[in-house]
Amino acid sequence: MHSLPKLTARHTDPGTYPPGIAFMDGQYLPISEAKISVLDNGFLHSDATYDVAHVWKGAFFRLDDHLNRFFSGMEKLHMSIPFDQAQVTEILHNCVALSGLQNAYVEFICTRGTSPTFSRDPRDAVNRFIAFAIPFGSVANPEQMRRGLHLALTDLIRIPPSSVDPTVKNYHWLDLVKGLYAAYEQGAETGILLDAHGNIAEGPGFNIFAIKDGKISTPAFGVLMGITRQTIFDLAGEMQIDCGAGDIPPGDLKAADEVFVTSTAGGVMPVTKIDGAPIGLGDVGPVTHQITKAYWRMHEDGRFRTPIAYP
Amino acid sequence: MHSLPKLTARHTDPGTYPPGIAFMDGQYLPISEAKISVLDNGFLHSDATYDVAHVWKGAFFRLDDHLNRFFSGMEKLHMSIPFDQAQVTEILHNCVALSGLQNAYVEFICTRGTSPTFSRDPRDAVNRFIAFAIPFGSVANPEQMRRGLHLALTDLIRIPPSSVDPTVKNYHWLDLVKGLYAAYEQGAETGILLDAHGNIAEGPGFNIFAIKDGKISTPAFGVLMGITRQTIFDLAGEMQIDCGAGDIPPGDLKAADEVFVTSTAGGVMPVTKIDGAPIGLGDVGPVTHQITKAYWRMHEDGRFRTPIAYP
Repeated sequence: MHSLPKLTARHTDPGTYPPGIAFMDGQYLPISEAKISVLDNGFLHSDATYDVAHVWKGAFFRLDDHLNRFFSGMEKLHMSIPFDQAQVTEILHNCVALSGLQNAYVEFICTRGTSPTFSRDPRDAVNRFIAFAIPFGSVANPEQMRRGLHLALTDLIRIPPSSVDPTVKNYHWLDLVKGLYAAYEQGAETGILLDAHGNIAEGPGFNIFAIKDGKISTPAFGVLMGITRQTIFDLAGEMQIDCGAGDIPPGDLKAADEVFVTSTAGGVMPVTKIDGAPIGLGDVGPVTHQITKAYWRMHEDGRFRTPIAYP
Repeated sequence: MHSLPKLTARHTDPGTYPPGIAFMDGQYLPISEAKISVLDNGFLHSDATYDVAHVWKGAFFRLDDHLNRFFSGMEKLHMSIPFDQAQVTEILHNCVALSGLQNAYVEFICTRGTSPTFSRDPRDAVNRFIAFAIPFGSVANPEQMRRGLHLALTDLIRIPPSSVDPTVKNYHWLDLVKGLYAAYEQGAETGILLDAHGNIAEGPGFNIFAIKDGKISTPAFGVLMGITRQTIFDLAGEMQIDCGAGDIPPGDLKAADEVFVTSTAGGVMPVTKIDGAPIGLGDVGPVTHQITKAYWRMHEDGRFRTPIAYP
């Protein structure tokens, strides 16, 4: 009989983590300490909802919209936390202030948690709230922001709303990750998934917009109701650009004059190639430029800013 | 300006955990120490695969089948770990031996992990292997095992194979959790989800079998290729009972003579009510009894046992 290895009392983590501050269990912690048990159903069943807000030049942008979506998602999943929106706002503020980050990616999560009796019944679980602030990230890197993203149209179907409600922001990403690998194989930088009817759905972490003859359109159903997506509707309204949601067949996307994608992680990001072929003239188009400028200008507007009081 | 809360250097975890031993980062640890970073894509994108084997009376049951499925799943997700099947077997053995558990639930996981450069590209991430042994658990409690489970037929659609490959065992459970809540609302104990064509698919953590006129059937597609499911095929073959996979319309399930469900967590579990109506005579039927006995007898068979050398 071979001898057994020794038991170690405490875990030593060899991982490296970005700078940042997390909140969990009433404690503000370095991000390297923000860990959940492998027994948490937020991990074992991906039974969780979350949201991501961003801080730009020292202020949250449209924080209340993110909080409303988060609280609505928890309700739909039969989850609750011992904090109201004002208290969550304070916690998020504190994470950012303690991190010192002027531009931050601020994620807040509710997991099903574990049951004190180890029951399998989700109603017995104690739901868990976690929040963290790390440096602002983007779907597109600076080079891609300048010359536009190169996308691949995949034949993968986004998890349909009949299975998982896309209005509850969730971590079910295996289809999106498969889309990424499919895109890499085609030499593209990220991928587009379809809905069950073969129309454009969304990509890994972003909504998709097409511009044709001055009119902006984006898929209506089966996609995340992105806050940045909503911001585009708002901006288009102010700029008196026609903007609507409806089915986009793949052919229409490829034949568009301009294409861009949106995410809290990066804002408005131009797309200049799909499946190796140029969109329009192959460079970042005028409407995309105009919308992008307006998007960042909106960040100066007091109506959408929640400033951080740094120490 | 209000004052900021203090930063805590180390997390104090108020959670309670079952007895058990975990392995991660080369360390054998109490299960309470087995935690993953909230930044691990295994959590943030549910980008992970796993398997669960069980130990019964001091021996693994069909361990190689679970390991084959786990390694095949990792390959399909473009993941790799620095251990081969023999090494994983040793790690799992050590977790169980150190736990002292004679009957155990042994889970092994590969997560995408995090990227040392904090890149969003899954190819840059360092994949992570985690294993743990905790006390054996069951979908059905002892009372339910004796009198049969009460199920509800939901109208929810299991995440289809066109989106997420069900042969890669995964944590995408939001549809199944919704099925549980739908079942609770109807006064049932667990729920059944449908496939995209309206036929029976599976339930939260189990495959479903119907028996009609001495013939056993179970859904063919869009479900987990359960090891216990396979064991039923093997046993039926030995017992010369007709057993096949194909579409089961909801009406056929309700009109079955007997119904049972299978899972590594519990083995063969009888079902005696669906939507409040009795299945057959409303008690655990003779074929279910026969299969259940044969299932546990198979655990004594040296061909399927990998014994644990406890200290």
